[in-house]
Amino acid sequence: MNEKALTLISYGLYVISTKVGEKLNGQIADALCQVASEPQLLALSSNKKNLTHDMIKESKKFSVAILEKDTPLTYIGRFGFRSGRETEKFEGINYFFAENGLPIPTDYALAYIECEVINEVDVGSHTLFIAKILSAEVLKEGEPMTYAYYREVKNWKVPETAPTYHKTG
Amino acid sequence: MNEKALTLISYGLYVISTKVGEKLNGQIADALCQVASEPQLLALSSNKKNLTHDMIKESKKFSVAILEKDTPLTYIGRFGFRSGRETEKFEGINYFFAENGLPIPTDYALAYIECEVINEVDVGSHTLFIAKILSAEVLKEGEPMTYAYYREVKNWKVPETAPTYHKTG
Repeated sequence: MNEKALTLISYGLYVISTKVGEKLNGQIADALCQVASEPQLLALSSNKKNLTHDMIKESKKFSVAILEKDTPLTYIGRFGFRSGRETEKFEGINYFFAENGLPIPTDYALAYIECEVINEVDVGSHTLFIAKILSAEVLKEGEPMTYAYYREVKNWKVPETAPTYHKTG
Repeated sequence: MNEKALTLISYGLYVISTKVGEKLNGQIADALCQVASEPQLLALSSNKKNLTHDMIKESKKFSVAILEKDTPLTYIGRFGFRSGRETEKFEGINYFFAENGLPIPTDYALAYIECEVINEVDVGSHTLFIAKILSAEVLKEGEPMTYAYYREVKNWKVPETAPTYHKTG
């Protein structure tokens, strides 16, 4: 098997946010797809080691912020390379609460989607959350950040918790 | 809800192929993600109206050909806008059988992946197939076709059977 083949699958880059009580948290995700049109459903893969994973399991809700191409690594690192167990990820950044109560970090977001989990599939290292769309809005014009751009143009590293993490590639 | 937000989610474009007895068939898909790293699993959404869908349900196997950016619309149309119930989609194109017996259409493929379905999730209009990776190989260098390039640069239309089909956008 040549893992390079797997890196040719296309993804975007998203901040996945959630809220349990007063605690806000978020993670970076790439494995997000719309998987059905009637009803409109998304699938999101989240690593079982992530605090966001446990908070989505508890609250059954998450938001997606679609990141723009020029999102700086410091911003991605805030959500992707630190744990919400040690830091308050929403401290010092701009965000608001959307119509269904979910936090939306806005600094580099082109659009947001609020989701409610209707099914969970255990896929080993990760849980696949199947979710219906509660709301979806565009925040500004722009081109989305892609995983290929992040990885090949920017040459930024992929965290070990990503479903697309490959030891060799 | 503004469906334009949903079109900012990033996808690639793939030919999904399968085989039942001597019958070969394939469809175009965009909703494909790696969803776990241990074990390495993919999720593929396929419309219940597609013959390929029924053939994957029967054979529990499919291959993914990752299309290159310059794939012509005629080639995509062969797999995406015609049904294998009326035509032989592999007639007159180049393909081979990979190590696990699955057909790989090679004309515009950068890489291929052979998969075995280990779980199926009913998501309404579509079935989400969770599959382990049997093989993965790179065929040539190049940039993958993305859904954004197909839809916004080429201005080609999205078939109604796609999970990402939106009436308004």
